[in-house]
Amino acid sequence: MADVLIGGSKAAARSYSFDEVAIAPSRRTRNPEDVSTAWNIDAYSFETPLLAAPMDSVVSPTSAIELARCGALASLNIEGLWSRYEDPEPLLARIATEDPAAVTPYLQRVYSEHDVQPELITRRIGEMKAAGITVSVAVSPQRTTELAPLAAGAGADIVVIRGTTVSAEHVNSDGNELNLKEFIHDLDVPVIVGGCSTRQAALHLMRTGAAGVLVGFGGGASHTTADVIGVRVPMATAVAEVAAARRDYLDESGGRYVHVIADGSMGSSGDVVKAFACGADAAMVGSVFARATDAPGRGAHWGAEAWHRKLPRGERHVMDQVGTFDEIMRGPSTRADGSVNIVGALRKAMATTGYSDLKEFQRVDMVVSS
Amino acid sequence: MADVLIGGSKAAARSYSFDEVAIAPSRRTRNPEDVSTAWNIDAYSFETPLLAAPMDSVVSPTSAIELARCGALASLNIEGLWSRYEDPEPLLARIATEDPAAVTPYLQRVYSEHDVQPELITRRIGEMKAAGITVSVAVSPQRTTELAPLAAGAGADIVVIRGTTVSAEHVNSDGNELNLKEFIHDLDVPVIVGGCSTRQAALHLMRTGAAGVLVGFGGGASHTTADVIGVRVPMATAVAEVAAARRDYLDESGGRYVHVIADGSMGSSGDVVKAFACGADAAMVGSVFARATDAPGRGAHWGAEAWHRKLPRGERHVMDQVGTFDEIMRGPSTRADGSVNIVGALRKAMATTGYSDLKEFQRVDMVVSS
Amino acid sequence: MADVLIGGSKAAARSYSFDEVAIAPSRRTRNPEDVSTAWNIDAYSFETPLLAAPMDSVVSPTSAIELARCGALASLNIEGLWSRYEDPEPLLARIATEDPAAVTPYLQRVYSEHDVQPELITRRIGEMKAAGITVSVAVSPQRTTELAPLAAGAGADIVVIRGTTVSAEHVNSDGNELNLKEFIHDLDVPVIVGGCSTRQAALHLMRTGAAGVLVGFGGGASHTTADVIGVRVPMATAVAEVAAARRDYLDESGGRYVHVIADGSMGSSGDVVKAFACGADAAMVGSVFARATDAPGRGAHWGAEAWHRKLPRGERHVMDQVGTFDEIMRGPSTRADGSVNIVGALRKAMATTGYSDLKEFQRVDMVVSS
Amino acid sequence: MADVLIGGSKAAARSYSFDEVAIAPSRRTRNPEDVSTAWNIDAYSFETPLLAAPMDSVVSPTSAIELARCGALASLNIEGLWSRYEDPEPLLARIATEDPAAVTPYLQRVYSEHDVQPELITRRIGEMKAAGITVSVAVSPQRTTELAPLAAGAGADIVVIRGTTVSAEHVNSDGNELNLKEFIHDLDVPVIVGGCSTRQAALHLMRTGAAGVLVGFGGGASHTTADVIGVRVPMATAVAEVAAARRDYLDESGGRYVHVIADGSMGSSGDVVKAFACGADAAMVGSVFARATDAPGRGAHWGAEAWHRKLPRGERHVMDQVGTFDEIMRGPSTRADGSVNIVGALRKAMATTGYSDLKEFQRVDMVVSS
Repeated sequence: MADVLIGGSKAAARSYSFDEVAIAPSRRTRNPEDVSTAWNIDAYSFETPLLAAPMDSVVSPTSAIELARCGALASLNIEGLWSRYEDPEPLLARIATEDPAAVTPYLQRVYSEHDVQPELITRRIGEMKAAGITVSVAVSPQRTTELAPLAAGAGADIVVIRGTTVSAEHVNSDGNELNLKEFIHDLDVPVIVGGCSTRQAALHLMRTGAAGVLVGFGGGASHTTADVIGVRVPMATAVAEVAAARRDYLDESGGRYVHVIADGSMGSSGDVVKAFACGADAAMVGSVFARATDAPGRGAHWGAEAWHRKLPRGERHVMDQVGTFDEIMRGPSTRADGSVNIVGALRKAMATTGYSDLKEFQRVDMVVSS
Repeated sequence: MADVLIGGSKAAARSYSFDEVAIAPSRRTRNPEDVSTAWNIDAYSFETPLLAAPMDSVVSPTSAIELARCGALASLNIEGLWSRYEDPEPLLARIATEDPAAVTPYLQRVYSEHDVQPELITRRIGEMKAAGITVSVAVSPQRTTELAPLAAGAGADIVVIRGTTVSAEHVNSDGNELNLKEFIHDLDVPVIVGGCSTRQAALHLMRTGAAGVLVGFGGGASHTTADVIGVRVPMATAVAEVAAARRDYLDESGGRYVHVIADGSMGSSGDVVKAFACGADAAMVGSVFARATDAPGRGAHWGAEAWHRKLPRGERHVMDQVGTFDEIMRGPSTRADGSVNIVGALRKAMATTGYSDLKEFQRVDMVVSS
Repeated sequence: MADVLIGGSKAAARSYSFDEVAIAPSRRTRNPEDVSTAWNIDAYSFETPLLAAPMDSVVSPTSAIELARCGALASLNIEGLWSRYEDPEPLLARIATEDPAAVTPYLQRVYSEHDVQPELITRRIGEMKAAGITVSVAVSPQRTTELAPLAAGAGADIVVIRGTTVSAEHVNSDGNELNLKEFIHDLDVPVIVGGCSTRQAALHLMRTGAAGVLVGFGGGASHTTADVIGVRVPMATAVAEVAAARRDYLDESGGRYVHVIADGSMGSSGDVVKAFACGADAAMVGSVFARATDAPGRGAHWGAEAWHRKLPRGERHVMDQVGTFDEIMRGPSTRADGSVNIVGALRKAMATTGYSDLKEFQRVDMVVSS
Repeated sequence: MADVLIGGSKAAARSYSFDEVAIAPSRRTRNPEDVSTAWNIDAYSFETPLLAAPMDSVVSPTSAIELARCGALASLNIEGLWSRYEDPEPLLARIATEDPAAVTPYLQRVYSEHDVQPELITRRIGEMKAAGITVSVAVSPQRTTELAPLAAGAGADIVVIRGTTVSAEHVNSDGNELNLKEFIHDLDVPVIVGGCSTRQAALHLMRTGAAGVLVGFGGGASHTTADVIGVRVPMATAVAEVAAARRDYLDESGGRYVHVIADGSMGSSGDVVKAFACGADAAMVGSVFARATDAPGRGAHWGAEAWHRKLPRGERHVMDQVGTFDEIMRGPSTRADGSVNIVGALRKAMATTGYSDLKEFQRVDMVVSS
C-alpha cells in the first residue's frame, strides 16, 4: 500500500474499495465453457468458490443443503436462532416484517432470552450430515472453546471462527483467552478464521494453522462498523494485502497454502469477480444469498452485529428477492444488475480476460478509477 | 498509465472516464466555419467522424440511409431483428412500451425464437445499397465466419466485428475458433473490429489487418458490464491507450494507419469531443442517436447484451426524444445539454481551441479534475 | 500544474475547482474593521473588487448605477436587450416567467429579431454617465471593431471584450479578424478582455495591452459549456495559472501590472474569497447579483450563451431572491449560505487569516480536499 | 501534509476529513472491559475524554451537571442565554420550534437585545459549583479580558476561550487587543483556547501557556464557515497537524504537554474515534449531545456563529433525539448509526485494535480512502 500523510507525522495507507477498481481485458479471450470455477480446501472440493455467510438470514440447515446442491459451501452459525429455538421459523418471519424502529430491540431480545442449547447444535449438524453434504458451522471467538469441539464431535467437517475482527493475539485480563494455535492444533477438523484486513494480522492468523482466513472488517450490507467505531479497510486493498500475506506465509512455512476468503462487501457479481482479481481464493457472501426466495430470512438480512446488546453495529435490511438459490448461483437471469447468475458472471469475466482457472485469474490486469 | 498499488503486490493502472477530463483552450482561436470534421477510412469518405452503433434501437435500413444523408456511417446489426423478422416494427413498438419488469424476458424471447435468415440479410443490404449509401453491417465474433462473407457477397462495403471484448487470440477448446488475421485477409471488404480497451489488446487487433478498432468495454448507456462482470476501463484512458497502440503499430508496420474508433460511453456532445481530444479518429455512438424522433427504437435504447439468454448485461432504457437525426447531427438546437447539434459542438470545440482538422485536434491540451 | 497521464502519451494537468480548495487560517488574526477591500484599475478606484457580469439578468443602466453606489463596477452588455429595444422591461418580465421548455426558443427570438441600435447604445451610456458613475460596457469579440469605438465615443470609461474564450490570435479565413493589440492601442479607454484560462493564453492577452484579463471558460451558473463542447478548466487552477502569467508578464514588460479578474463559477461569498486566495485582483460575478430583488432579471439569470441560435450553451435559471444589491454587497445578512454580505464575508476571511489588503491576501495558505 | 500545486506557483496542502480516513485493525485484539478511556488535564480527572461544546443547545447549568455525572466535561458559554436572561427556557423552546425562515432573525434578536449580566454569570457558576462538579465556562476572545476573570472569581475551574479561529497574535488597530500570554499567566485557572487548525497557529497558542488547544475551524453541524468565508481545514489533517505541534512544543518547552482537543465535525461515534486516532487527547462535541432528550436545545442545535448580527455563519438545525445524555455516553444502544453509546464505541474501537489507553491509541494504523 502506498502511504499518504494525513498531517503532521500521521501516515495512512491509501486503500481502495471494490467500487474504485475494475478488471481490464487484455489480448486474449476464451469461451466461458472452457473455464473452471472449481475450489478445494483441505480434503473438500466444491464446484464453485462461493461460501454462504453464517447469518440466520442466509443459512439454515435446509438452505445449507440446497446451497451445497448448487455448489456453494454454507456455514451455519451455531450461536444463532437454530441453536436457541426448537422452531425459529415464527421468529424469522417476524424479523422480516417487524417495524424498522422496533426490529433492533426485537433482535436484541430473541438472541438473548434463550441461550444456545448443545442438543440443538447436535441436532442441526445431524440434519445437514444426513443430507450427505460437507457440513460447516461457525462460532464466535468468544465461544470457540466451548462450542467448536462440540460441533466437531457432532460431525461438522469445517469450523469457521468468525468475528468482526479476530486476531491471533487476543489480550484478555482474566487469563481466560483463546490460544488459537493450540486450539486449532487440537481440533480434528480444518478451521477457517477471521476477519482480518491487514497483511500483518493475516500473517499471524495463518501461523495458527488455519486452513483459510476470512478477509473483512464487518463491512457488508448489514453492517455499520465504519460509522459506529470508525474501523474500515476498503476491501480491494484488504484482499490484496492478505493475498500478499499468503505468499509471505507460503515461503515462511515451506509451502503451506492458506486460503484467502473475501468476506463481505460484495453486493453484486461484479464485486465477487473483483475479489478474485485482487487475489481471493474464495468469496463468502451474505446479501447476495439473502435475496433468494428460498433464503430463511424471507428477503430480510442481518448479522450478529445487529443484535449486540449494548452497541449494535448492524441493521436488518429488507431487500428485493431476485430468484432461487439455484438461479442466483447458476442463472438463467432476466436481471442485468449482477444479482443473479453469480457463477455465470464469474465464468464470463474469466473468459473475457482469457483465464481458465481461478488461481490464474488472480493475475488479471486491473484499473483504479474514481 | 500511472500505476498505483491496490495492496500487497497488486498494482493497477489509474484510469480516467470522460467525466474526469476536459479540454483546455489555449492561446489561439478560430472561426467554426474554418474547421473541417471530415473523416475517411479505407476508400470511404464522410462529412463527419460519427458512426451509429449497430443496435436495433438506432440502426434500421431506413435510419441508416437517413444517417448517411446527415454525414454519419451507420452499421446495421445483421444478427438483430431486421435479419430475424420480415417486419420488426410491431416488435420494436412493443419493446419501447413494454413494462420495465417484463422487457428483458421479452427481449430474450424475440431475439431467440427466430434465428437470422440469410435472405433477410441480403434483402436489408440491398435496400441500403439501392439508396446509394456506403453500406456497413455488424456481426458478433461468434458468427463472423458464417455471416460476414454472406454480407460482403450481398454488397456490404464495410464489416464491423463487434463484441463487448474482442481479442485477436480467442482460445476455444473445440478448435473451431475464428482466426481473425486469416479471416480479414480473405474478406474482400475492410473490417472494423472491437471492442478493446488496452494498448496490448489493441495492438494485437491492429496486426490482424483491420482498418479500424473499436475502443470500449460495453460501457454505454444501455450496458451494465461493470456491475455484472466487474470489467471496466474508463473511456478517456482506454482511447488514449489505444491511440498509443496506433502509433506503436504505425511504426512496426512501416506506416499502416489503423483508425481508433471510440465506441460507447459518450452520452453528450461534450463526451464526443473529449473522445477526439484523447486520440480517437472517429466516434461510434448509440444513445445519442437513440434519442432521435426518427430512430427505430422510438426513444427506447438497448444493445445485444440486453438479450443474452442466461446473463443479460444491459437494459432497455427509455429516453427523451430530442430531435430528428438531422437536428441531432447538425442542429439548430434549442437545448443546452449536449444532446443536439453534435457536429456543431465538435466544430465549436475545435474552433475554441484553434484547431482546423480532427487529426490536429488530437493534440489539444486537457485537464483532469475530480 | 502537475501533469497526470490519462493514457498512452496523453498527459493532462490536474486541476482544481473552488469546491476542492479552501483557505487555512494561520498564526495571525485581525479585526475585520482593519481590513481594506479597495481595488483600483487604471485611473479608476472602487471600494470593492467586485464586478457585475455583463448579463441582462444583472446589469441594466439602472442597476449599474445602484451597483456603483454599493462599490461595485457593473458592465452593461451593449449587445443585449437594452441596445435592441426601447423598453426591454416587458421582455425581461416574460423571460423570468416563461415556461422552461419554451424559454430558450424565446431567448433565441428576442435576441435575434432586432439588432443592436447605435442610438440606443449611446443613450444607455448617457443615462449611466449622467449619474456620475464609472461607465463600463461589454462587447463580444465578434463585434468589438464595430461597437467598442462607438461606446468609447459615447463616453464609456472602460470597455470589456468578453467571450467564452477569447484569444490574442484569432484565425479567421476571411481575413477580417480583430487584431486585439492594434485595436487596444488605438482605443482611448482601458480594455478588459477574456475569458482565458491558461497561463499561455493569458500571457498573450496581456501582451495586447489590456488593463485586465478575465479568467473563466463560460462555466458559471447559467452555462453548460462543459457538457456541450467538453471545455472546462476548473477555476481555482485557472485563476492561479493566470496569476502566474501576470507575474511572467510583469517581468517581461518591465513592470506593467495586468489585473486578473476571476469571471464566473463563484456562486457564494466563499467562492469569491477563494478566487482572491488563488491570486485574483478582482471578481466578476453573475448569479450572486442575479439574486438581488432589484436585479433586472427578476430572479432569473442567463448569459449570452443561452441565446446562441444554433448551439445554445447556457440556460435561464430561476433563483431565490435574497436581498437588495446593497444587502448582497454589504449586509446585514440573515442567511448563512454565503449569498448575502459578500464584502463582509471577504473582510472576515481576510481578518481571520490576518491580512489587511487584497494584494497580501493572495498569499494566504490553502488546502486541497476532495 | 503533502503539497499539491493548484496552479502557477500556488501550492496547497492535501488535507483529509474524517470521512476519508478510517482505522485499520492490526494483529492484536483486546477485551473492551480491559480498556481505559480516562482523561485528565491539569489537576482534573475525567472518566471519559469527551467535552460538551459551549453552545446553548447543549450546555445549561443543569445539563452540565448531568454530563459531569456521565463522565464528560461541559463548558457553559457565559455569553449565551443563561447569562442574558433570568429564565431562558421559553426562548429555548421558541428557538426549537421557530419557522426555519424566521429563526436566524430571532436568534439575532434574543442574543442582542439583552447583554450578558455579571450577576447571572456568577449565579450560573454557583449553581454548577453547588453540585460539586468541575466547572468550566467559555468566553469569546473579544470579551475574554472582561469576562474570564469574573468567571474565575466566581469559582470556575477551567476557562475556555473559543472562537472560530483564535490566534496568539491578534492585530487590532485600536491597540486594545488581548495579550493571550499575559492574560493566561495572570489568570488563576487553566485555560483551553482555540480553534486553530494548523501546526504553526497551534504552536503559537501552546506558547501562551494554555493547558489545551481546540482544533477546529467552525466546521461542525451547525456551521457554514466553509460556504460563507471559504475557510476550512478538513479535521483529520487539522488534528494530526496540531498533534505534531504538541510534539514540537513538548521538545521546545522541555516537557510541557498541551492537550489537543478536537472541536467539531464529529457527528458520530466513528468520527470521535478517528479524532483520537489522528492524535487528539480529547474531543469536544456539539451535535452528538444536542440529540439528547435532556439537552436544553430540545433537539435543536446552533452555535454562536448563527447569531452574528451582520454575517451569520451557522444555522439552527433540528435533529432527531436519540436518547438521554447517559445513553448517548454509555448506552445501551438500539441504534446502529453511531449516535448512542459513544464511550462504548470508543472502547470497542480501542479493543478491536488492541490498545488499552487513549495515549497509545493515537498510534493506531489508519487508511485513507475516497
